[in-house]
This record gives sequence, structure tokens and C-alpha cells, in this order.
Amino acid sequence: MSNRTELSTLGEFGLIDKLTKDNKITNKSTILSVGDDCAVLDYGKKQILVSTDAMAEGIHFDMVYTPLKHLGYKVAVSNFSDIYAMNGRPKQITISISVSNRYSVEALEELYSGIKLACDRYGVDIVGGDTTSSQTGMFISITVIGEGEKNKIVKRSTAKENDLVCVTGDLGAAYAGLLVLQREKNVWKTNPNMQPELDDYDYVLERQLKPEAQKWLIDFFEKNNVIPTSMIDISDGLASEILHICNDSKVGCEIYMNKLPIDYQTSRTLEEMKIPAETGALNGGEDYELLFTIDQKDYEKIKDNANIHIIGYIADKSLGCKLITPQNTTIDIKAQGWNHYQ
Amino acid sequence: MSNRTELSTLGEFGLIDKLTKDNKITNKSTILSVGDDCAVLDYGKKQILVSTDAMAEGIHFDMVYTPLKHLGYKVAVSNFSDIYAMNGRPKQITISISVSNRYSVEALEELYSGIKLACDRYGVDIVGGDTTSSQTGMFISITVIGEGEKNKIVKRSTAKENDLVCVTGDLGAAYAGLLVLQREKNVWKTNPNMQPELDDYDYVLERQLKPEAQKWLIDFFEKNNVIPTSMIDISDGLASEILHICNDSKVGCEIYMNKLPIDYQTSRTLEEMKIPAETGALNGGEDYELLFTIDQKDYEKIKDNANIHIIGYIADKSLGCKLITPQNTTIDIKAQGWNHYQ
Repeated sequence: MSNRTELSTLGEFGLIDKLTKDNKITNKSTILSVGDDCAVLDYGKKQILVSTDAMAEGIHFDMVYTPLKHLGYKVAVSNFSDIYAMNGRPKQITISISVSNRYSVEALEELYSGIKLACDRYGVDIVGGDTTSSQTGMFISITVIGEGEKNKIVKRSTAKENDLVCVTGDLGAAYAGLLVLQREKNVWKTNPNMQPELDDYDYVLERQLKPEAQKWLIDFFEKNNVIPTSMIDISDGLASEILHICNDSKVGCEIYMNKLPIDYQTSRTLEEMKIPAETGALNGGEDYELLFTIDQKDYEKIKDNANIHIIGYIADKSLGCKLITPQNTTIDIKAQGWNHYQ
Repeated sequence: MSNRTELSTLGEFGLIDKLTKDNKITNKSTILSVGDDCAVLDYGKKQILVSTDAMAEGIHFDMVYTPLKHLGYKVAVSNFSDIYAMNGRPKQITISISVSNRYSVEALEELYSGIKLACDRYGVDIVGGDTTSSQTGMFISITVIGEGEKNKIVKRSTAKENDLVCVTGDLGAAYAGLLVLQREKNVWKTNPNMQPELDDYDYVLERQLKPEAQKWLIDFFEKNNVIPTSMIDISDGLASEILHICNDSKVGCEIYMNKLPIDYQTSRTLEEMKIPAETGALNGGEDYELLFTIDQKDYEKIKDNANIHIIGYIADKSLGCKLITPQNTTIDIKAQGWNHYQ
């Protein structure tokens, strides 16, 4: 960035004005957008979905290798993903950003341009927010509001015995991308003149830096008249998410290790890092794929979609949550999760 | 606090569970609350209001003199205030908190207890949120969702010439309270054994540490069949807010300095600090009073309410925004605002 305008030259109102001045409204349900105490939404008879997700510098992202535009895109998309995970559609977001004066106005505009790009692509309106200073670092919180049809909203808690467990796309790629970035950062710290070697990692890097949400699946469900029996998005890793579904639905499951969809580049990258690909697929976060269960009667409707993978089935609670290895041994599924405080 | 549980012992899910385990739902419109990807709200034919407000440690609050329970109460109430400012009623909130491991679980519970107390008192449900770690400090962002009736939502941009300008309660108290706290902090830094002298400042301290939102005014409007022509809450000071109304409504105004409602303790405290009381009333933030305009035909309906003060009237844009002193001189109103980056 060649220009640098100090945040102090704008003040809070100036900054908000600058960041939201070309804010376009695309949804009929958005009656009034930024510029007043509140946004005004009109949803008639639809049900409303609300979710909040936050990301903090040094915890969820590292400024050394995270372009701000990508960061904005990612935090927006990760929020949309929560709405799709309910079989709904995101419509509006509010954005809360706290940054220290280490950041310039241009840096914040870069961040916002990523958020706006994501909003454009997914048809979401920015309807409000707050921008404040912080003593150090950057913190972003987005609240997304979406709509769903009354009897088509899908919860985590309604999976039933014998349902098929399905997952979209492929797993572990975002985690593999993170490991590459961390490795290159360490190389760079030792020798700042070294150029990072990233050519062979384009797919996993894109999955880490600029993930997409699975809007297509909601369209697919609508078109094919499928309502999943439960659904969740994969932000903390498949293991953690399947446990959420099983615990909340009071059921068990069997997941087949050799059915886990893993991209070739992911698997090669994880091997380089001496991590079994399946471990990355089970515990790596931030893929934003969707994990869902369907009644067996819907099998015919989904079986030909190359982006939907059946990885197991729902069992009685007494069986627990099990991973079946290719050698047919059984392992308890445990959530690694992400304990940022450790 | 006698107990200290390290945040690291709980992890993110444990922390969210702990913080939200006794979360009560009071609104019929809350179909599904925390525990899934999204909350589900059902508003039938009402219009929805959404607002987000954030507070950062060291910027909006100082841990030296801000009890965490009060902080939680204040950040919730400041969000409710945005909904009342549209003549609506807050119904749900989502909470995003980022804290370093300097904070204990008990500290976060204390913060949440303040948020919950505010929600109880104002009839608002907690429907979601995110808790993440930060490298340093604490950052809180709340998104509030409320409802309003279609033709009764009041914007900033609809004040008309000859409307009366009104304000609730009294002004400058929260600012006076802040100055007392800052003074005592400085005394304490010089001599940590010194007991703070706060007895004579109970009112201004309460206004700073535990402000209330003006729900009563929305009830009053409903009961007396008044719809203000414009309204805004006073979070950044009267001067800043009246300029928002005038700029957005494309009008001017005359505000009478001797009509500004100032509590005796506020005025005495500000004098001690060598600040003219009117300056504090005009530029002090965080009072969360409501500033509104009404058509003159509604004068009879409001004139007997002791908590509503008529402080001026709306004029043609060409007259600008003027403050009239007791000596009948005219001063341009300028927003001091709060530029946290300076």
C-alpha cells in the first residue's frame, strides 16, 4: 500500500462513513441500512437466523501471512457458513472491528473490500457495525442474519438412528494450508531474504486464506426436495462437529476412515509435515464444508452428486461415536477442538 | 474473587457452555437460542431492528475502576439504547467476547452476570455469541435485535422545521463520573494506600458505571400516542447527536443553553474539575438519554412529564445549528465526538 492515512485523521464517524459509503443494498427485506441507530429488516412470514463469529489477530490469523482482503472475505464467509448450516440463506451482516492505530485507513479499507466481495458473491447486505480502536491488535466480530422457511430449518439435534452421515467437498485442506504458511513464516524469520515456496500448495493455501461457504448445497437441497435430518458446518474439524451432532441428537455413529474425502494436495502436504492425512481431515479446522445426515429414503437423491460423500451412518447412542479403520478396528472419536487458551 | 479457574482448563466449548448454561428465554419470538449454528427468531409481521456496539479495554473502559459486572450491564444497556432510539423494543442479543488468558473464568462469569442482569431487567434474550481468546486485553461486541411497528419506527432523518427538540433525564453525568474515576485512579497511582473518596459522587458514578436505557420513554410514547418526528440516543454527547439529526434531516436548529438539564451533582463535580457544566452536558458521552423531536401539535402530550425537557426547536437548514447562550449570543454547535485514535 503506497498511501497511508492515519486513523486519527478521520475519527470514528469519518471512518465509518469512509468504510460504508458505497454500501449497496440488494435484499428487499433490508428496509434501512447503516447510518442510523439500527438497521430495519422486514421478513414477513419467514423465520430469522442469527449467528455471530469473531476472529482475533494472533489467535485466528497472523498478519505476517494473512492479506487483509482475504481476512475480510474469510470472516464474512465463515459467518455465512453458519446460516447455510441451518439450511437457511444469509441476508444481512453487521461488522464490529477493533483495531489499534498501527493500522492505516487503507488497511481497513482493504479488510472491508474483502468483506464486501464476499457479500456481493453471496448476496448479503452490510447493515451496520461499529469500529473502535484497540490498544493492540485487531479483532473482528460479524453478526449474520439470515432467513429460513419455517419447516425447513435444520438443527444439530435431530439426527436419527440409521440416517446416512454425509459431508461436502474435501477435508483437512485449510489445516494443511495453515501448516504451509506457518512453515514459510519460520523460514522467513530465519532468513528474511528467502522467497516463500508456495507454488505447489495453491489449493490448500486458497482453502486456508479464502475459503468458500457451501451455498450450492442449500440450492441443491431445495431443487431436489431434500431436507437433511441434521446439519452443522465444519469449522473446528469433522471429529468435533460429528460429536456435536451425536451429543445433541442423543445418538451414536460409525464413520469410515477410508470414506473421508481428502484432496491429493492436502494429503501430500500433510505427509510432508509427518501428519497422517486422516488426522488432518478429522481434526483440521476451518474447512467450512457442511456435515449433515439424511434419512435413507433420500439416498437416491444425493448419490450422484460428486461433491457429497457418504462417510458413515447414525447408530444408537449406546454404540458411542466410532471411527472404523480400513483394518476394521474401531476407535472412539474424540474432539481435538481448538483450545486457544493453552 | 477467591476462586480462579484458568481459561485453559475449559476450552472454547466448555467456556461457552459455562457462560450460557442458565440462559433463560422469555420472548415468544425466540424459537431457538444458543447451542446451534444460529438462533431462530420468528417475528411474524413486525419489523426488525438490528444494531451492534463494541467496547474495548483501555479505550472504552479501564479495568482499574470498572467492575466486570457493571461493564457487562453497561455494554448490554448501551445496545438496548440503540433500539429504543428507533422507538422499538430490544428482544435478543448475541455477544462476542475476546479476552486474553489474563482473565479467569470467574471474571468472565462476572461480566456475563452483568449482561444477564440487564437482559432480565429489559426483557431481552441472549441467543448466541462467540468467545475467543485475544493476545491482550478484552473486547466486547454485542449485536441487538429488536422489533418495531411498521409505521412507528423513528429515524434520525425525519425532523422538520418548527419541531420541538426534547431530551430525557439529565446530561453530562456519565462524563462527570468518568472524570472522578480518572482522578481517583491518579491519586491511587501516587499512593496505593489512599482510599478513594467517592461518597459525594454516587449519582455521577452510577451514571458512568451502570447507565440505564430509556425504555420508559417508549412506553410513554405508546401510552400517549406520540410518535417523535426523529430520535437518537446520546452516546457521544448532545452536540454530536443533534448534529446527526440536523445533518440527516437537512435542517438547522436552535438549542437554548439554559434549558439543558443538568443534575446538581453533575454541575458541582464538573465545576470542581474546572469544566463549565454546559460543556460537559453538550460534549460528555455515555449518558444514554434520548434526544428527539416532536411536532408542535404534540406539545400538550409531553409538557407535564418531568423527565422530558424541551431544549430548543428545529429551524431551516440555512440557519445552521446554533446554541443560544443566556446572554443571547449565538454559537455554532460543533461535535467534539470521541476520536479514540488521537
